[in-house]
Amino acid sequence: MFNELVIPSRTIMTPGPVESNPVALQAMSSRMLGQFDPAFLTIMNNVKEMIKIPFGTKNKQAFAVDGTSRSGLEAALIALIEPGDKVLIPAYGRFAYLLGEICERAKAEIKYLEKDWTGTFDQEDVIEAIKEFQPKVVAMIHGETANGQMQAIDKIGPFCRENDVFFMVDMVATYGGVPIHVDEWCVDIAVAGTQKCISVPSGLALVTYNDRVEAVLDARYQKELGLSKDDRNENHIASNYLDLSQLQRYWSDERINHHTEATNMIYGLHEGLRSIINEGMENVFARHAQNDEAIVAGIKAMGLGFYGDLETKMPTVTPVMIPEGVDGEAIRELLLEQFGVEIASSFGDLKGKVWRIGNMGYSSRHENVLHVLAALEAALIYYDAPINQGAAVKAALNVYKRSN
Amino acid sequence: MFNELVIPSRTIMTPGPVESNPVALQAMSSRMLGQFDPAFLTIMNNVKEMIKIPFGTKNKQAFAVDGTSRSGLEAALIALIEPGDKVLIPAYGRFAYLLGEICERAKAEIKYLEKDWTGTFDQEDVIEAIKEFQPKVVAMIHGETANGQMQAIDKIGPFCRENDVFFMVDMVATYGGVPIHVDEWCVDIAVAGTQKCISVPSGLALVTYNDRVEAVLDARYQKELGLSKDDRNENHIASNYLDLSQLQRYWSDERINHHTEATNMIYGLHEGLRSIINEGMENVFARHAQNDEAIVAGIKAMGLGFYGDLETKMPTVTPVMIPEGVDGEAIRELLLEQFGVEIASSFGDLKGKVWRIGNMGYSSRHENVLHVLAALEAALIYYDAPINQGAAVKAALNVYKRSN
Repeated sequence: MFNELVIPSRTIMTPGPVESNPVALQAMSSRMLGQFDPAFLTIMNNVKEMIKIPFGTKNKQAFAVDGTSRSGLEAALIALIEPGDKVLIPAYGRFAYLLGEICERAKAEIKYLEKDWTGTFDQEDVIEAIKEFQPKVVAMIHGETANGQMQAIDKIGPFCRENDVFFMVDMVATYGGVPIHVDEWCVDIAVAGTQKCISVPSGLALVTYNDRVEAVLDARYQKELGLSKDDRNENHIASNYLDLSQLQRYWSDERINHHTEATNMIYGLHEGLRSIINEGMENVFARHAQNDEAIVAGIKAMGLGFYGDLETKMPTVTPVMIPEGVDGEAIRELLLEQFGVEIASSFGDLKGKVWRIGNMGYSSRHENVLHVLAALEAALIYYDAPINQGAAVKAALNVYKRSN
Repeated sequence: MFNELVIPSRTIMTPGPVESNPVALQAMSSRMLGQFDPAFLTIMNNVKEMIKIPFGTKNKQAFAVDGTSRSGLEAALIALIEPGDKVLIPAYGRFAYLLGEICERAKAEIKYLEKDWTGTFDQEDVIEAIKEFQPKVVAMIHGETANGQMQAIDKIGPFCRENDVFFMVDMVATYGGVPIHVDEWCVDIAVAGTQKCISVPSGLALVTYNDRVEAVLDARYQKELGLSKDDRNENHIASNYLDLSQLQRYWSDERINHHTEATNMIYGLHEGLRSIINEGMENVFARHAQNDEAIVAGIKAMGLGFYGDLETKMPTVTPVMIPEGVDGEAIRELLLEQFGVEIASSFGDLKGKVWRIGNMGYSSRHENVLHVLAALEAALIYYDAPINQGAAVKAALNVYKRSN
């Protein structure tokens, strides 16, 4: 009645999910361990330490939330926000509005600082807005996958710290692909995912936070009713499942029973992180930077344009203008069906105008870059688009050969 | 710096997580597909249909929430509850209080109907409490893992339906192990997990609901701000991540972009469900019943007692009284360290008094039952506990031989 799984081979060059690291996939099929089995606790403890490395933090707290990236965003925001709290959200792309949506549901008073999606904010403008609005929390996206832009935050964070404002940053699209300095940038709570630059399947969110956030969580902690009738707290967090004050105690030596950990996702996370840590974070970043340079060179050589400011473009996403008269979705379909290559479209106003080529994690490899450029060129030729022929792959190869 | 994964072999006879089905584990290591890849959409559609089978439902809506079982419980409850709504929670074990904790955080007015943990409710008592309290929602546990009891609900559900009360049931510990009839029992919304009787690692919650619940969700639907500035809804659900009105549209042909699906967990779910459907649900239930009989016979033969009413015991969990003078945790440690066998302790007042032996899914096999009985006997002998020696395994074998 139901057939076995059919999983065709794909070259995935989207901004996530990307191809998984085979060592992470292999680990995920390891046999089950009970969540309180000492062997599993060792794995959890290692994972905590490894999570911190791509975040660039010495925070005590770093662990996984058992849900996709946005579960971590929601957990982080509802940890800090109480109804009526003021949240400033500088928005230069789609995912700022996801933060806003979550804050709205948490009944915050929200102010958006908005700009067009072609670039990032001058940090001074954000600082001015903080001075004016005096929020409790500033929530920002570090790398916006919708337009491929990456916001500099090294001045915003220290300003927040000096003024006792909490600084929450979504690092889902940059974690493990570009250098991140949570401590140096004074980020109070940061969130990442698994399905992008660390190349583990989607299903876990990674969070890290400092003592300032931990103090808030301690003040809001409520032990679960099924475990104890004491420890009631009127100021508890709105969600049980996404309650970081409980999750922290589950991941600590206290090991309070909260959920049943997604053990096999944790196995995959362990190996995905270990793989890039062993590669060396500097080497990982250099690999992403080089492949980004090759993608940009190839797209330029084809005669296609880019969306937004190349100066502030994330190395992990390249937004490409769909040429006039070309049906972007027809090209994407041809790429997927005939070449087994996946690239992404975009959201909101950019839908139908922009393709997004990802360059993340295990997908960030020479052969993938060369394959996506060759396939895109061939697809454009097939649909009679006016492009420079024969130039893209050579331009990318020149980047690789020059670098060697 | 970080070592590779070390995953010892375990015989897991707890009430979950249990040993994973090897075909599900194998599936989870399959390569990545984009979440909107047509090949993955086919898998999602198959999964929707397969989820319904162990629930015994023809509901249109059945899908997975990307979180552990309790994420589904929270999603189900916050879908129905608005602040001040009255919720009746009949409590005969720990997990009723988890439902209460979630409802409390959703600002419901909660009434517990409480009893000791040794048995289940007479359905008429629950019906009387419903008449008296007139709740909007009745939330119950079908199978309570803390004490191994299973509540009959075939009269409560129809009474709720006739009186326009919503009936929400947690079927995490029974789904796939015992017959469930969501439609016949008039359950409006039911929740299950993956890590118990369908033997897929923890990380997904399964939900199904009927048109009555769907109507509530339609009335509360709010499209995400990053996708559209229209469709604002003052009555939206409190969580974005656990918003079933959005999740339903993600799992439908509408495919609104919500989260990035945990594709590889879905692969595992597909194969875990397919495996038991192919085995035949009646055969699956008979297997669990027979192994339960063997466990009970073995424990009895050893001279140990049971906690609670055996008449209403779930076939998937057996609560065993820890003999006077025996250190329950020392026995559990010896079992794990020397025999590689895991059994569970319990919660609250039962902690230190009761062991729980699970009998779920892929762990529900003759060799596991015989191994846990033999190991438990040996551990008790090692600690000089006064038990009948040499009887347990033979009693279990007699069950198997008689049945053949």
